[in-house]
Amino acid sequence: MEKIAVLGLGLIGGSLALALRAVGLAEQVAGFDAEPIVTRYAMERGAISQVCATPEEAARDADVVVLATPVLAMRGLLARIAPVLKRGALVTDTASTKASVVAWAEALLPPHVAFVGGHPMAGREASGIEAADAHLFDGCAYCLTPTIGVDSESMLMLSEIVERLGAHPVTLDAEQHDRYVAGISHLPFVLSTALVQALGESQDWLEMARLAASGYRDMSRLAAGSPAMYRDICLTNKESILDWLDALTAQLGVVRMHIANGDEDLLAYFTRAREVRKAAVTRAD
Amino acid sequence: MEKIAVLGLGLIGGSLALALRAVGLAEQVAGFDAEPIVTRYAMERGAISQVCATPEEAARDADVVVLATPVLAMRGLLARIAPVLKRGALVTDTASTKASVVAWAEALLPPHVAFVGGHPMAGREASGIEAADAHLFDGCAYCLTPTIGVDSESMLMLSEIVERLGAHPVTLDAEQHDRYVAGISHLPFVLSTALVQALGESQDWLEMARLAASGYRDMSRLAAGSPAMYRDICLTNKESILDWLDALTAQLGVVRMHIANGDEDLLAYFTRAREVRKAAVTRAD
Repeated sequence: MEKIAVLGLGLIGGSLALALRAVGLAEQVAGFDAEPIVTRYAMERGAISQVCATPEEAARDADVVVLATPVLAMRGLLARIAPVLKRGALVTDTASTKASVVAWAEALLPPHVAFVGGHPMAGREASGIEAADAHLFDGCAYCLTPTIGVDSESMLMLSEIVERLGAHPVTLDAEQHDRYVAGISHLPFVLSTALVQALGESQDWLEMARLAASGYRDMSRLAAGSPAMYRDICLTNKESILDWLDALTAQLGVVRMHIANGDEDLLAYFTRAREVRKAAVTRAD
Repeated sequence: MEKIAVLGLGLIGGSLALALRAVGLAEQVAGFDAEPIVTRYAMERGAISQVCATPEEAARDADVVVLATPVLAMRGLLARIAPVLKRGALVTDTASTKASVVAWAEALLPPHVAFVGGHPMAGREASGIEAADAHLFDGCAYCLTPTIGVDSESMLMLSEIVERLGAHPVTLDAEQHDRYVAGISHLPFVLSTALVQALGESQDWLEMARLAASGYRDMSRLAAGSPAMYRDICLTNKESILDWLDALTAQLGVVRMHIANGDEDLLAYFTRAREVRKAAVTRAD
């Protein structure tokens, strides 16, 4: 490949660019970020080999274009790059919600390019290019959501890129992806913020915070994520997230009742949770 | 000191015994666990220097006795060791709830011994003596809750032991401790189990679990904790935990509304959560 373009150079875009450069997949990795200083810093870090002042400049002549901005910025980006994309280009993204992006791509991109949605199941507490890491995707699941009628060559090509990044591709329908990820990823984030706020509003919070240990740290880590990114996620995956919030609220009612009753069901509840968790994390490892 | 007794040799008791031996605080560390094989294994690991078949055998002639069992087992243990404690002995515990233990100690122990409640704010995903670690308490807060009329020498002695373990003592009233810890520690656990159950009950769970990343792992880690230990915690700290659950449920209602409305308050909510979290974790570090 001659040129890969990465639009948006935060934690995910920056890490992706670093990893692409590390495995030498293309001669050029062209980068663009809405903040010029971020693009320049990505160049200094060696994440990109070409600084671009506009998304069009980055996308022109690229064999692969990766959109790695917050999801609500992607519609505008797709519209801007659509006229300059070369015939046969593969366009993908890294957003945490897929149905909207896939629909925008189907509506906005010309028929001579292929779009396959992408979502690396990787994250960090820290955000931004400063936190970027070529190994961020090592061993992670990387969801691929094809648009209608996308050719199998494009799917295969993106799968191979994903594997070269160290991740394993998982192909899913976009709606299915959004439902699953609302539960396994977005719900945990929303819960983390609600927990932090419930505690932070207490008049005793400053005293309590002195006692914070790994439990609080684990459960509040997601709340340190990018507010704008998660706002976009909630707005583009609203119904699924609300459904999961309702399921969670129902579970809180169940465990509340067991605690209030002080019955043996409480032990069974905690035992079951431990089993489910152990099975899931063993499978994921 | 000649002899310290540790009753209960799980993660906390085992780690405490290992740390006590490592810093050489006493000539003998006598150990007892309800499961004889655990006591023998603790001896093999060098956590204790004396295997005891009963709590009385461990506590007899000890200068310091540490109870490190699940909290509901402590009442019976206090009753058993009360007759054999030597004059001037210092008794402490490691339970996550303090009001019950302090009340039992005040009722059951003879006046010629001192009781100071203790709670190291340390934990691990793994439990049991296998996971014990002499460095578990490095840098952690270690709550001390004195009984009525306890002498300042005993407080000072326990503070010094805690510092030798690498932790920093924080003195609190038992009721205050239980309210604070219900929020910073017990609520996160209950929430973690409810999240795991809400997801685990989905018919899509096995598919979804393949996508689990660090977010799910962080938020479900506490649910892997000992069910019996947490059952005891919930039964001895019921009112405070229920209050916090209600505060959390209210916050979930707030964030649900912001998501449903899709308004700018959602960004403000996430931004505020990030600020509270960052301030708390910076303070704790």
